[in-house]
Amino acid sequence: MNETMKALVMRNGAIHLETADIPIPGPGQVLVKSLACGICGSDLHITRHEDEVLDFYREIGEMVAGREADAGIMLGHEFCAEVVAYGPDTPERLPVGTRVTSVPILLSSNGAGVGVTPGIAGAYSEYFLVDEQLLLPVPDQLPSAAAAVTEPLAVGLHAVNRSGIAEGDVALVAGCGPIGLAVIAALRRRGVSAVVVSDLQAGKLDIARRFGASHVVNPKEQDEVALATELAGDGRVVIFECIGVHQLIADFMRRAPSGATLVVTGVHTAESRVNYAYATVKELDLKFSYYYNPEEFAECLNAIAHGEVPWQLMVTGSVGIDGVASTFDALAVPNDHIKVIVEPWRRGGLESTRL
Amino acid sequence: MNETMKALVMRNGAIHLETADIPIPGPGQVLVKSLACGICGSDLHITRHEDEVLDFYREIGEMVAGREADAGIMLGHEFCAEVVAYGPDTPERLPVGTRVTSVPILLSSNGAGVGVTPGIAGAYSEYFLVDEQLLLPVPDQLPSAAAAVTEPLAVGLHAVNRSGIAEGDVALVAGCGPIGLAVIAALRRRGVSAVVVSDLQAGKLDIARRFGASHVVNPKEQDEVALATELAGDGRVVIFECIGVHQLIADFMRRAPSGATLVVTGVHTAESRVNYAYATVKELDLKFSYYYNPEEFAECLNAIAHGEVPWQLMVTGSVGIDGVASTFDALAVPNDHIKVIVEPWRRGGLESTRL
Repeated sequence: MNETMKALVMRNGAIHLETADIPIPGPGQVLVKSLACGICGSDLHITRHEDEVLDFYREIGEMVAGREADAGIMLGHEFCAEVVAYGPDTPERLPVGTRVTSVPILLSSNGAGVGVTPGIAGAYSEYFLVDEQLLLPVPDQLPSAAAAVTEPLAVGLHAVNRSGIAEGDVALVAGCGPIGLAVIAALRRRGVSAVVVSDLQAGKLDIARRFGASHVVNPKEQDEVALATELAGDGRVVIFECIGVHQLIADFMRRAPSGATLVVTGVHTAESRVNYAYATVKELDLKFSYYYNPEEFAECLNAIAHGEVPWQLMVTGSVGIDGVASTFDALAVPNDHIKVIVEPWRRGGLESTRL
Repeated sequence: MNETMKALVMRNGAIHLETADIPIPGPGQVLVKSLACGICGSDLHITRHEDEVLDFYREIGEMVAGREADAGIMLGHEFCAEVVAYGPDTPERLPVGTRVTSVPILLSSNGAGVGVTPGIAGAYSEYFLVDEQLLLPVPDQLPSAAAAVTEPLAVGLHAVNRSGIAEGDVALVAGCGPIGLAVIAALRRRGVSAVVVSDLQAGKLDIARRFGASHVVNPKEQDEVALATELAGDGRVVIFECIGVHQLIADFMRRAPSGATLVVTGVHTAESRVNYAYATVKELDLKFSYYYNPEEFAECLNAIAHGEVPWQLMVTGSVGIDGVASTFDALAVPNDHIKVIVEPWRRGGLESTRL
């Protein structure tokens, strides 16, 4: 095996195809070969707003010495990969060659996030490290791209679990990107039947319906909050903000009905303006949802494996390792894609793979 | 009985002693004589920020035709009063002369708030109207000032009920005004033993201790959030924002530990700036608390009547009807008062009544 690999490094607000050392697994760690890795909205966000995001992480103390941003960030945290080699003193439960996925965190390295930490290889690279204890084998019949969407599905499931929504409540899912669709899937599995979904794109609303939305709304044509409020009657409305535009948080506070819960997914690092009085007189709850736990992650892989999630509708494109930089540019403007999968071992530009 | 009364009217950002018609009770309504009425922080806020507050209430549709602000607002919603006369078709359960308190709302008049609605008499006036169905008789042994603090105690109890705090959680009560003290009282009645309280004034911290605070902190000398976080260990911190400074919401989001709940009491009508990223990476819950229900109100009157709340420590001053305007000026700058009681049937300036 070579000692170097091709890696995609985010540096100075752009994606660069570089050569990097293949990482060496330590105790408890596994070297894996990346087979498929989803491009996450947060990857686009950190690339476009690098200073703002890194300043924030530095401020909260998540940038430790030796991992400073000038090392660049090797992105990629939504992956399916293949076991290549184990570190020393590692149980080696799964044979080399097994396809796996995992919560993207290295407990063995101070809990560093895979794909978000300067100096630690991410899954856009040919190789990266994971912890053996977190590995989940991917069933043979499941394509690698399907396993790669486990992670965004877990984000959505966790947001639903955080919300405390009950079966009789009305959900409003604002935005049909991967997280919005993941929220819809989780809501339906949790027995919530009234799921209003809003998006500006008709094609995405069609997919939302196939994920289980009971009502779909283009908010330029119909007031999605008013519809959810009407459906709820005396019941509760739970709004899931899955658009990623921070000023919509204040907008939903203003428009939400009394007693509503607003679940904010995604990270908004820009300063926002808000008048809390709306939240006060309506006694709103705001719940911020960020990560997920290994049980939620495993539940989502199982749901995919058992055909409970039409993941094929989420995966709208794939791209080789040399096409990612231009794909980031393409995804920075409004587009039809939901989830684009990076395949680090091939070359080629963004191709539509929608079934 | 005269057909006019002395009334305090908030108009153009100041308190005016005026003559007004004594209101005539309709069906279900009771004319009462105001015996004691607390000055609330919201009364001071609406007087200093009249346009901002009224614009907000107009925007959310709580200013209906015929109640426009040029009528002035007859403030006063924390009261003890005496039954004077009943409207037609009203059960008249309590004898004329009975001392009463009540949730300050007229269900009989489209749910208008007493003491906050233009054109509807409040309890700073000599007389005002309440609904018979909401009346609670005040036990004979209880001073009128004690019954008047039922309302702020209910605000604090509701905030505690909204918070979902468990006995083993750590509470941080920021601010020792009436709401902060009410929160402390409710927390102790709910069995929460770790109650950290912060205030800049040593005298108020001393009162907080006598209300049941387990730890008191001057935040200029010690980091109150760090102390609560340390006490919580792996448990949850619940922060009650009882200071009424909107920028502290963002400050607590920044400083709160992971998984904390932040309960915001009071109404902040000014636009605020916030970076939600702190709330996201720590998965905070924000709960906005505003009103209370009749059961919570009754629970607080009972707690006072049974000697469970040292209400005497809250009542720091009293003032006659002609001294309220200057008292508002005195309370607009930092001061030692907690709750000042207006006694509309006497004249005289602000007097300290602390025991």
